[in-house]
Amino acid sequence: MTKKITIALDCMGGDKSPDIVVKGACQVAKENKNIHFIFYGDLDLVNPLLEKYSILKDRYSLIHTTENISSEDKPSVALRRGTKSSMRLAINSVKDGQSDAIVSAGNTGALMAMSKIVLRPLAAVDRPAIVTYVPNQKQTATVMLDMGANIDCNSEVLYQFAVMGHAFAKTVLKIENPKIGLLNVGSEDLKGSDAVKNAAALIRESDIADSFYGYVEGDDIAKGTVDVVVTDGFTGNITLKAIEGTAKMISSYLKEGLGGSLLAKIGYLLSSTSLKRVFKRIDPRLYNGAMLVGLNGVVVKSHGSTDATGFANAIKVAISLVKDKINDTIIREVKSSGLDIEEE
Amino acid sequence: MTKKITIALDCMGGDKSPDIVVKGACQVAKENKNIHFIFYGDLDLVNPLLEKYSILKDRYSLIHTTENISSEDKPSVALRRGTKSSMRLAINSVKDGQSDAIVSAGNTGALMAMSKIVLRPLAAVDRPAIVTYVPNQKQTATVMLDMGANIDCNSEVLYQFAVMGHAFAKTVLKIENPKIGLLNVGSEDLKGSDAVKNAAALIRESDIADSFYGYVEGDDIAKGTVDVVVTDGFTGNITLKAIEGTAKMISSYLKEGLGGSLLAKIGYLLSSTSLKRVFKRIDPRLYNGAMLVGLNGVVVKSHGSTDATGFANAIKVAISLVKDKINDTIIREVKSSGLDIEEE
Repeated sequence: MTKKITIALDCMGGDKSPDIVVKGACQVAKENKNIHFIFYGDLDLVNPLLEKYSILKDRYSLIHTTENISSEDKPSVALRRGTKSSMRLAINSVKDGQSDAIVSAGNTGALMAMSKIVLRPLAAVDRPAIVTYVPNQKQTATVMLDMGANIDCNSEVLYQFAVMGHAFAKTVLKIENPKIGLLNVGSEDLKGSDAVKNAAALIRESDIADSFYGYVEGDDIAKGTVDVVVTDGFTGNITLKAIEGTAKMISSYLKEGLGGSLLAKIGYLLSSTSLKRVFKRIDPRLYNGAMLVGLNGVVVKSHGSTDATGFANAIKVAISLVKDKINDTIIREVKSSGLDIEEE
Repeated sequence: MTKKITIALDCMGGDKSPDIVVKGACQVAKENKNIHFIFYGDLDLVNPLLEKYSILKDRYSLIHTTENISSEDKPSVALRRGTKSSMRLAINSVKDGQSDAIVSAGNTGALMAMSKIVLRPLAAVDRPAIVTYVPNQKQTATVMLDMGANIDCNSEVLYQFAVMGHAFAKTVLKIENPKIGLLNVGSEDLKGSDAVKNAAALIRESDIADSFYGYVEGDDIAKGTVDVVVTDGFTGNITLKAIEGTAKMISSYLKEGLGGSLLAKIGYLLSSTSLKRVFKRIDPRLYNGAMLVGLNGVVVKSHGSTDATGFANAIKVAISLVKDKINDTIIREVKSSGLDIEEE
């Protein structure tokens, strides 16, 4: 018999919670028999939703709290005042062993700050990071990190990101031998900052050397040149948002353009199955679920504005990470590199 | 009578030169009576092309050279060995006052290195930068700099980029009071690196303070939140290429999707006028022409893989910059800031 997995769900984070959280859990419950949920949130808001769905019967607990971290709260404020918030209680449950993972659509900065304090970084890891994945032209996905947790990153930190991204690609995307690229402004050896150049040297000396492709450029993300793109949190965050913004702009141009003349409308109807397939390939809901990687515990961040299908995808990411014991892989690979990691 | 403007054209740089250079010049010559061209390149290759187009008659000179900078040449090699290259001779002609501007589709690093040596940075400017513009959702364009000339940038340098981007937006895009944003990982004051935070403070104390919007994020580029997005060359280069890569990926998905079933093909035909309008809005040729800004002279870089229409657009950018005396504006605005700029 498969082992039961328990997922802690923050019911108060994000734009459309608790609605999308409960509905997302239902979608996952239908497909997975061995999943149990602990919902953290306001009983008055969450209970009526839970009672609607028979699929969840006997498969959840509900921990009541009315406290909540808002999207505007600074991490420092969240740490100080949010000790009874739904997010904090859900993270605590991972620490206490009641849950195997937590999923939240709430404030990313607060989620990272609280997770660091409560769960602590893995002994082998210097800086936890945010890892996510985006569609690419090869019709697979490109894993990217760090998406904004660390503004400045030295070469050791970038090297660890490579290890963690490699483990994420194997675990979540089931890529057997993921290729790693370091994001840079050119492919020649002399290009880039010292941190990037030294990180390349570290990777080449490490156990993951065979998986290292070398430098990649911004357009290699969409091309799918490599499976894992490594960069600092400043560039990563800006690049990811620029990609999302561009996809949204073109989608809105298309919808506007195809809604124009009568001929265009008829044309749209005739080609709509094909167009829907195109939109589905770049559907951000299918890429929802960023891991806060490098912590003693599995923490998954959902987009704040996603819907139930998107949130369900984030839960599925968490389940993959738990099943495949991603942290064991990370600890093993970082340690085997022989890097002398110092705590900050 | 309008003053005659002379544009120096590097006929050897880029994938499809000299063909696109001569054809692009013809397109511009048809629309502009007062433009004269100096073509730099191999007589045997360029002359047969020039003789084909009567519109160019009596409106050009041709300077023969068989030497050429390749796209693989490092800037240091180009400087040392490229003194008789088409690119170098074209830059020299701006220095000597024979031309008002140079346009090249060649190696960007070599073009910047040679331009710095030959033309020198403006007295008021610490670091020349590469400025370009991309489509946005407001159906205008967003100016971005630096696109890769400077990997590390301190706050003074970022401030100067803001001034230069502001002048570019006024000159090329004819925006009366361009809004400036500093690219960052969040909009709150505490976010970002010290360089970015200090640059914000410098802009707020300067003459362009009224044009300063504050921090913007990656998705604000496509949203068109501001007219000018300022960032260091590392992040700028990667972000620009990520945007281009995403647009290409979606275009290829669409073309593939709409070429699928018979219904999709009929649908595409019926809606093709509307779709063409969409593709036109994001057509990279209309956004071709990056300025190497902050130099004693107007230097414009065309995409290496563009066609004649794209190259013509780059020439038009150069003409705007010359007509509106962009460097006078930059010198005035940087000087009026009272910054104590030191040469590096």
